[in-house]
Amino acid sequence: MNITRIEAAATRLAGHGVVTPLLNASLLDALAGRRIFIKPECLQKTGSFKYRGARAAISALPPEVRQRGVIAFSSGNHAQGIACAARELGAPAVIIMPEDAPALKIANTRAYGAEVVLYDRVTGDRDAIGAALAEERGLSLIKPFDNEEVIAGQGTCGLEIAGQAQAAGIEEADVLVCCGGGGLTAGIALALEAHAPGLRPRPVEPEGFEDVTRSLAAGKRQRNAAMSGSICDAILTPEAGDLTWPVIERLCGPGLAVSDDDAMRAMALAFKRLKLVAEPGGAVALAAALFHAGGDGDVIAVISGGNVDGAVFTQALDRFGDLG
Amino acid sequence: MNITRIEAAATRLAGHGVVTPLLNASLLDALAGRRIFIKPECLQKTGSFKYRGARAAISALPPEVRQRGVIAFSSGNHAQGIACAARELGAPAVIIMPEDAPALKIANTRAYGAEVVLYDRVTGDRDAIGAALAEERGLSLIKPFDNEEVIAGQGTCGLEIAGQAQAAGIEEADVLVCCGGGGLTAGIALALEAHAPGLRPRPVEPEGFEDVTRSLAAGKRQRNAAMSGSICDAILTPEAGDLTWPVIERLCGPGLAVSDDDAMRAMALAFKRLKLVAEPGGAVALAAALFHAGGDGDVIAVISGGNVDGAVFTQALDRFGDLG
Repeated sequence: MNITRIEAAATRLAGHGVVTPLLNASLLDALAGRRIFIKPECLQKTGSFKYRGARAAISALPPEVRQRGVIAFSSGNHAQGIACAARELGAPAVIIMPEDAPALKIANTRAYGAEVVLYDRVTGDRDAIGAALAEERGLSLIKPFDNEEVIAGQGTCGLEIAGQAQAAGIEEADVLVCCGGGGLTAGIALALEAHAPGLRPRPVEPEGFEDVTRSLAAGKRQRNAAMSGSICDAILTPEAGDLTWPVIERLCGPGLAVSDDDAMRAMALAFKRLKLVAEPGGAVALAAALFHAGGDGDVIAVISGGNVDGAVFTQALDRFGDLG
Repeated sequence: MNITRIEAAATRLAGHGVVTPLLNASLLDALAGRRIFIKPECLQKTGSFKYRGARAAISALPPEVRQRGVIAFSSGNHAQGIACAARELGAPAVIIMPEDAPALKIANTRAYGAEVVLYDRVTGDRDAIGAALAEERGLSLIKPFDNEEVIAGQGTCGLEIAGQAQAAGIEEADVLVCCGGGGLTAGIALALEAHAPGLRPRPVEPEGFEDVTRSLAAGKRQRNAAMSGSICDAILTPEAGDLTWPVIERLCGPGLAVSDDDAMRAMALAFKRLKLVAEPGGAVALAAALFHAGGDGDVIAVISGGNVDGAVFTQALDRFGDLG
């Protein structure tokens, strides 16, 4: 992985992805006691940064491979990113989803034109179903984070941060990134290394699932003990990837972890002060910037996605709408 | 009023206001049967386009006048725009607000550093209080829309739309604008006349308060019969301004009116498909684009603001969250 690949992905994405703005709200600065800038990837196509990596990976396939189609395993944001980018690029897309995935996410993935294949989490063998389909139709598997082109696509978010920070006169800052498998974190870290060395990428995770934070502290990749028990579903992964971990180890840290309640508080403040819809997992970096990161220098927080049900969002407003 | 003044305002705003992106969501296109683009002014500083005009007007004052301070009458978005821009420019700001204005809006205006003077709607004389303060301290009154520099500031939104539409390959489109006193509508219309003549500005108002729509149909300025009875409080005004109406008459139309329920439906869809928080009055143009504008060409809808209480927002999600 190097910066050239990220820049090539940016060229392929130009005119297709959203160049999300770098936002600031002075009343949030007052709350945190320092300047906070927000990179709202919830405004990206399909409501999360995942579109960047999906489009970068599918557009990197040779035309004859691409036209046979792509396949992905996902019950969430990666599914929608792949489905949308595949349709734009004229590639058939098959998404393997658990049959108990939220009806809305299944419906959205289908609405973007993908073929959804459902499996039973208990009795079904997801990998066997996927492998059989891929073999039969010649589909290319697009992994959610351990894929060089996916990481390069997520890195285009970092290129934008570097340019926008420079334009805003931000020379040094922590850059807090919501971190699951580490595709976005690694991509941003590589872009900042090349173009904004004063910006320091730091992964942010849900408390109890801070495998990357523990890995950075230990100097060795760690796994999460469980895969459920946080509302931050979008960023719950067993461990960082084989490709993402070495980048994160070299360029990022220290990590931060925030509670579910802090994620909900950040959602309520994003509603009130930024007019943005953040999903719980997408709000952890903002939560860390507001409540946990310490220090008094500038901080940039990525809101990584906004695909949240109305009921969960309403709960955040009901509980924490009086804040700030 | 001419384009030169808008371009001068853009120069003064550069690096201060947010260049809001032009967004698109293919699932909204599918719902409307044509391409819809969104200009989200809810992402502007203070949560509405009003910051543009406020900063343009205050920055146009001669330094010795500006340092004496500014005064405004407003219970809403204009108050916050003036308070924020005044603080940035080092000008004292006095905002005259009714004492029954929402506590949050009073608190926000104070949080931006303005002095809030409350009056009793029944027994107080707002104009007399304001005139006495302005006289005593030498304050400059900044009207919410009938001020050439305010209109020029709102016009910077139109300059951005013109450039962004060209970059997106949009040569012809309706541009739907939430319309109260007409400052944003007139400013955008002047900018499009000069830079994007294929884009046609059309005001959108709440049903029952569509004075501008009726005025355009009649060829003569009309007034609203009432000033309450819609949830779209941000855009309820008695009539278009002396400065805005001639511009709107010359360049805009026909107007459109949408129901409160349609505004709420659009809020729910902005949440779900755009990850944006729109206030009722800020959502009428999107509502018209989705439900009322007819035709099959491209359409651009401005979301003019997002300053909505959690309770109202929650109500929109509860009632219309299953849409689209």
